[in-house]
Amino acid sequence: MFAKRMESLKVSAIREILKITVNPEIISFAGGLPAPELFPIEEMKRVAMAVLNDSGSEALQYSMTEGFLPLRKQIADRMKDKLNIDLTYENIQIISGSQQGLDLSGKLFIDEGDVILCESPTYLAAISAFKAYGPKFIEVPTDDDGMIISELEKIITKTSKVKLIYVIPDFQNPTGRTWSLKRRQQFMELINRYEIPVIEDNPYGELRFEGERLPALKSLDSKGLVIFFSTFSKIFCPGLRVGWIAADKKFLEKYTLIKQGTDLHTSSISQQEISKFIELYDLDANIEKIKSVYKQRRDIMIETMKKEFPPEVNYTYPQGGLFLWVELPSHIKAEALLLTCLEHKVAFVPGDSFFPNGGVENTLRLNYSNMPEERIVEGIKRLAKVIKEYNRIKA
Amino acid sequence: MFAKRMESLKVSAIREILKITVNPEIISFAGGLPAPELFPIEEMKRVAMAVLNDSGSEALQYSMTEGFLPLRKQIADRMKDKLNIDLTYENIQIISGSQQGLDLSGKLFIDEGDVILCESPTYLAAISAFKAYGPKFIEVPTDDDGMIISELEKIITKTSKVKLIYVIPDFQNPTGRTWSLKRRQQFMELINRYEIPVIEDNPYGELRFEGERLPALKSLDSKGLVIFFSTFSKIFCPGLRVGWIAADKKFLEKYTLIKQGTDLHTSSISQQEISKFIELYDLDANIEKIKSVYKQRRDIMIETMKKEFPPEVNYTYPQGGLFLWVELPSHIKAEALLLTCLEHKVAFVPGDSFFPNGGVENTLRLNYSNMPEERIVEGIKRLAKVIKEYNRIKA
Repeated sequence: MFAKRMESLKVSAIREILKITVNPEIISFAGGLPAPELFPIEEMKRVAMAVLNDSGSEALQYSMTEGFLPLRKQIADRMKDKLNIDLTYENIQIISGSQQGLDLSGKLFIDEGDVILCESPTYLAAISAFKAYGPKFIEVPTDDDGMIISELEKIITKTSKVKLIYVIPDFQNPTGRTWSLKRRQQFMELINRYEIPVIEDNPYGELRFEGERLPALKSLDSKGLVIFFSTFSKIFCPGLRVGWIAADKKFLEKYTLIKQGTDLHTSSISQQEISKFIELYDLDANIEKIKSVYKQRRDIMIETMKKEFPPEVNYTYPQGGLFLWVELPSHIKAEALLLTCLEHKVAFVPGDSFFPNGGVENTLRLNYSNMPEERIVEGIKRLAKVIKEYNRIKA
Repeated sequence: MFAKRMESLKVSAIREILKITVNPEIISFAGGLPAPELFPIEEMKRVAMAVLNDSGSEALQYSMTEGFLPLRKQIADRMKDKLNIDLTYENIQIISGSQQGLDLSGKLFIDEGDVILCESPTYLAAISAFKAYGPKFIEVPTDDDGMIISELEKIITKTSKVKLIYVIPDFQNPTGRTWSLKRRQQFMELINRYEIPVIEDNPYGELRFEGERLPALKSLDSKGLVIFFSTFSKIFCPGLRVGWIAADKKFLEKYTLIKQGTDLHTSSISQQEISKFIELYDLDANIEKIKSVYKQRRDIMIETMKKEFPPEVNYTYPQGGLFLWVELPSHIKAEALLLTCLEHKVAFVPGDSFFPNGGVENTLRLNYSNMPEERIVEGIKRLAKVIKEYNRIKA
């Protein structure tokens, strides 16, 4: 009765298990949720009133598929300002969260059997979005500096039908790692040589706690091959579901066409509210507030891990973003560990689901943005205790 | 570089032409826009404040893919109340406007080459949503009472791989026609016999100006084959982009799974605002207000057409909804007529794009919900003048 693609789209057992983390007793490092206590609720009241007063009829009416023009201009200006990317509102398509960009990209590029290259590991919801279009994933090995470019080149030269490369160079989900400048440059050299479209997914780039911001791939893109995604979900509020695609017009026109058939357009009022917020308030100041809280939470998490985790456990040290990545001794299976942890009321996402082709069982992702500090300390202690038990059993 | 499906997804020339209708000098019967002067802007201010005060953090945060629970319950209750359809919140998936339901359905059901049956003509944006999945459309002949069931049966018996039947039984877009009770019963008999999933797209059902409401197909559905779509776009405000799917759990679970990969969830704050509006205000009273205005606009449009159109022109008399359908003498091509009409600053949608397989050139769709009465009179006069000219040329 259903389309063939539904065979590969299954309800994830892990996701079902993690549904119990809505229970507030559980300390959850599993989600990717921003800290709700930082949402500018009072400012949003003024913003909502201003939008309804100034342009209520337009805000509640159907609007253009491309998006709300003033917001597209604000985004283009901001990208020029922050990222040194030279584009105009005509290069901006508003989407319903950057997740939608992934779905639209699958539709735009992927025929069944086409190859997508991605970092190993990569964002799990990108995997599920693309899977609906039947691609083959080839995972490119990564290290602390990002994608290993020599490995990428090997794969490109021996693979036919590479349609798309999907990467998250800044504070990657799930690892928290950031590509070095050299890797970015080498990557773009290679891309320009082979002329393969690249999706640069960049929801976390503005959340850098320390070190200097590195150039976005899009800012190094001389041939218009990089399709840049970002979102207001991590620098403002995710509940409004507003993100954007910034790309060369040859791509952007196609995205607009597909988006029209998919959902006509993104919420008019959400777009107008974000635009009004940027006009009335200081988005940068909002981001600074977020960064200072997340930095503290990262610090307290890492500090507690240093104290509590056995020395055989390795983890990344993210310079920004929302996540870090833990590698357990190879005999510990993260899925089994999770079941025990849930008994101790602490949760995380086992790493296996971040590998499109699976098979890596001793890793896990921790989120530090959503829990207050004392819960982070307590949660890491509980996790450490279970890890130690598992470690002892084997040893 | 792009997926094969992109070959069938082209920018419509007509849509490009109609972009000039944003010019306020043009009297446009082309869109499907509600009357913005009826949007409850003052009420929305109170609603926005109440949501931000009562549950701002949740309204601005990520939320469940299935949708905001209180809203799902309100929808289920309302459907029971208005349509005599017995379901619970577990049968409701919130979507980003009912357009998204069409895209999700293509993804759920359609493999390349599968057959979709639909009314001839049918909703043009359904055609573009489904097209992305490569179906073959078979158009089922219709008359003033809806789909002709004997023709439908002939097609079903001689066609393999009918995956889906897509219908709009109430105040159809584009024709404004409504299926008779008898046709509804015959249709469901046939569906139960052949067990084919049906999408009942019902955005306009509550906008009946006269006559008695007829039972939704879903209310006659004993085998759980009917997937019902509706939306707040026509009974409240489209700018929020909130619609829903009501279906048997075997379908609903799949829709939820697909929606998760597509855009995670629909705007949390939009959902909460609609829920709060229903709680604080009288949605039925809002609908009554809309109906009385649209009825008057339909009346004035029909009245002016009676006076001004040559007798060779036929048109439907919709008992509700937003549209009516005009059949011109066969020698008049609606696309050519449109170009002349635009010179006279009046616009409509030529009917050809509502036939998935094309080939019907002498029809057009008129919208009467969006223009005030004096503009309707003036616009129909201009249109009639051009039709008369075209009619004279041939005669």
